[in-house]
Amino acid sequence: MTATTKHSAAAGPRADTRLRRLPERGSKDFDLAAAIIDDARIGHVGFTLEGQPYVVPMAVARDGHSLLLHGSVVSRLMKNLAAGLPCCVTITHVDGLVLARSAFHSSMNYRSVMVFGRAHAVTEPDEKARGLDLLTDRLLPGRRAELRQPTRKELNATTLLRLPLEQFTAKTRDGPPDDPANERDVPVWAGVVPLSLQPGAPEAAPDMPAGIDLPRYLRGR
Amino acid sequence: MTATTKHSAAAGPRADTRLRRLPERGSKDFDLAAAIIDDARIGHVGFTLEGQPYVVPMAVARDGHSLLLHGSVVSRLMKNLAAGLPCCVTITHVDGLVLARSAFHSSMNYRSVMVFGRAHAVTEPDEKARGLDLLTDRLLPGRRAELRQPTRKELNATTLLRLPLEQFTAKTRDGPPDDPANERDVPVWAGVVPLSLQPGAPEAAPDMPAGIDLPRYLRGR
Repeated sequence: MTATTKHSAAAGPRADTRLRRLPERGSKDFDLAAAIIDDARIGHVGFTLEGQPYVVPMAVARDGHSLLLHGSVVSRLMKNLAAGLPCCVTITHVDGLVLARSAFHSSMNYRSVMVFGRAHAVTEPDEKARGLDLLTDRLLPGRRAELRQPTRKELNATTLLRLPLEQFTAKTRDGPPDDPANERDVPVWAGVVPLSLQPGAPEAAPDMPAGIDLPRYLRGR
Repeated sequence: MTATTKHSAAAGPRADTRLRRLPERGSKDFDLAAAIIDDARIGHVGFTLEGQPYVVPMAVARDGHSLLLHGSVVSRLMKNLAAGLPCCVTITHVDGLVLARSAFHSSMNYRSVMVFGRAHAVTEPDEKARGLDLLTDRLLPGRRAELRQPTRKELNATTLLRLPLEQFTAKTRDGPPDDPANERDVPVWAGVVPLSLQPGAPEAAPDMPAGIDLPRYLRGR
């Protein structure tokens, strides 16, 4: 038995033929992809310009059946993505080291989603403001409500992109190592070392006025 | 002052013209990129097939001035990369949430390297075995020495790729939020919440024989 499972959703006409097509996608696949995305703060955005692939880390947030990305309006990347350049956004969590009895069977536990498609810019002011709020809230839930509203100048300086969460694959591995039966008695420790992204103690900005308490959403960290 | 610094090395003839050319690359840039890579276990590998970009998470290890990747010989991805498909491997660490007084100035601390180029397969048996050992050792230093040697069948089932670490950019942000001077007195907590990938308690495989101690390199975790 292998602990690796592959959950595939539809791919566009150009994408890998091993991916299943849209009508076959179940809500279970979507729920898995959504959970992986909602656990993440960044994704890796891939695209090609003049034959050269680029992979750029960017903040991500899910808004229902789409992924939100944002960046500066002057960024060449944002302009190209907003113009509908095909892209792939991959979100990965490394959940553990899988220590098998051999190097060959050693692995990692992980959860990963690849989203394929073309993004478009969100320009309607209310929708744009709401999308940017979502990205801020993804950084740290509860934070957004404490901050002032963005100015018109700030909104104009920011491009918000929406990528439909329609063409995607999710792939995960969990559980213990999967050594062949004839190697399970090898006298070497085998198992999993879990890994997770953990917050450390908050570090106050040196220029903060005295008398400001740590907010509720940061206590206990 | 911004805490963001960009360290750029050469780009190939096809790559972003804003990147500096090879002769200008300093050893400081290389040392920074190497340190970022050496802190990572995975990278995101981007490439384009038939007009569709893909970004795939893969284990990475640095061997001097190159990046090593490995995978199954039957993988279409490995075959394409071994054939010299242009790729970009991006390695990113999220080091913290940067909580500014406004959403607009909020950010993340991170370290990221983008490596551009074309990989080739390592076929010389000793070099290949040594490269695979390096990838295992990157998973967990000290582990490799406890494991048996790979069989010829295992070696033949694995493709090892070497991507020169010659064309790259490194980009980092660290330090506190950088609010404009007129917002530093806003009565909102500002600062950084550090984030790091932390190991949890090792979980022994359920099929492990009794009497095998936790190895030295896992104690204290």
